[in-house]
Amino acid sequence: MRILITAGGTFEKIDDVRTIKNTSTGRLGQLIAEAFDDVEIDYVYGKGSLLPKSNVNLYMIEDVRSLEKTMDHLLSNHEYDAIIHAMAISDYEVYSVSTIQHLASLLSYKSEAEVYDILNELPEDLNRYNKIRSDKNDLVVFMRKAPKIIEMIKSYQNTYLVGFKLLVDVDENILLDEAKLLMERNDCDLVLANDATSITGDHHVGYLVNRDLSYDIYHTKQDIAQAIKEKVMEL
Amino acid sequence: MRILITAGGTFEKIDDVRTIKNTSTGRLGQLIAEAFDDVEIDYVYGKGSLLPKSNVNLYMIEDVRSLEKTMDHLLSNHEYDAIIHAMAISDYEVYSVSTIQHLASLLSYKSEAEVYDILNELPEDLNRYNKIRSDKNDLVVFMRKAPKIIEMIKSYQNTYLVGFKLLVDVDENILLDEAKLLMERNDCDLVLANDATSITGDHHVGYLVNRDLSYDIYHTKQDIAQAIKEKVMEL
Repeated sequence: MRILITAGGTFEKIDDVRTIKNTSTGRLGQLIAEAFDDVEIDYVYGKGSLLPKSNVNLYMIEDVRSLEKTMDHLLSNHEYDAIIHAMAISDYEVYSVSTIQHLASLLSYKSEAEVYDILNELPEDLNRYNKIRSDKNDLVVFMRKAPKIIEMIKSYQNTYLVGFKLLVDVDENILLDEAKLLMERNDCDLVLANDATSITGDHHVGYLVNRDLSYDIYHTKQDIAQAIKEKVMEL
Repeated sequence: MRILITAGGTFEKIDDVRTIKNTSTGRLGQLIAEAFDDVEIDYVYGKGSLLPKSNVNLYMIEDVRSLEKTMDHLLSNHEYDAIIHAMAISDYEVYSVSTIQHLASLLSYKSEAEVYDILNELPEDLNRYNKIRSDKNDLVVFMRKAPKIIEMIKSYQNTYLVGFKLLVDVDENILLDEAKLLMERNDCDLVLANDATSITGDHHVGYLVNRDLSYDIYHTKQDIAQAIKEKVMEL
């Protein structure tokens, strides 16, 4: 049996010293990996996240593009019995950095459509690399949709896919609706839905939603990890 | 004897799950603190940075504003023999988040000055709080100058101030010129100038620049920490 776990958060670079990070300690992924015995685990993790103490194959990534490459490599070369996709991945990636003064000079007396096109086609330059100097009054960071990694998984192979949905401070019914949407869109077999306001250290309220939309509620990361392991081992 | 050390990096929030981080492990600050014996140390550190194993008074901060408040509190209540300001601090803070579509609707047929003013006065709203939904095609993050913490220090008290200048991939003479500028602007007594391309783990090329602009070069974080400690203890 071989499974793939993703955990931790991604980093998108603004420049060589500034990054946009998706907050995640990697603690839940660590516990999920440690819950399994006698299973080969490929463990893809965001730089700096907590690592399992058990024996896993480690693949570190930084930004969404490096995650995409690593997933392409792993999904092309191995058959997985399950993929547990717990990583907190940036929905957006940086494509340009500018200043208000520069934007004002580009956008004067342009139509709405022209403004849209100019902003959408800003070049990938403006000393993005090395450290952006701090002598500017302001900095405008343009980001666009990054590739959705969860969407690519089932195009490579038919596997048991566990998706994760994190929202912040929403009603339970909205959280469950979003979990259902994630499941349908990406052909997930199980979804953990959680709200950041109900997570403090290892206390962690999680709704584990099955394909038929029935669900169980857990209250610690340890219980969530154990429940996910049991669902996978039932296969 | 009492000293203040700042170390690690700051985080500026885009929303509750996305932050802009200034890259710093806090390793050098940790080693500097550990180099001192029998000195009371107030240690202000960015969340997640490495901490000294020795006995120090810890003050965690996240963004530049929380650092500013902590520094105001400490500088108002204690006299420091030296302040070693090693923290990697964001030069900018987020003031608004928008989308290209929204900006296009605001900016059509406006003059250059109007575009500048509109962008400069964007409201602090647009669901900054909670998690920004990922259903937008793009995200534009507006940042403006954050308060310069190093500038405030000598307005509170006359102390021995050690400043840090980090650049990326520049010539040695540019690095030394920037160190000189930092020293003059902020009345530093000693400046560590370093280039991120010459830092790998504990290997760390650092130019320790004195008030008279003479300098010594060190090659490890341990040697830099020891040299800073010796300069401070000579007082």
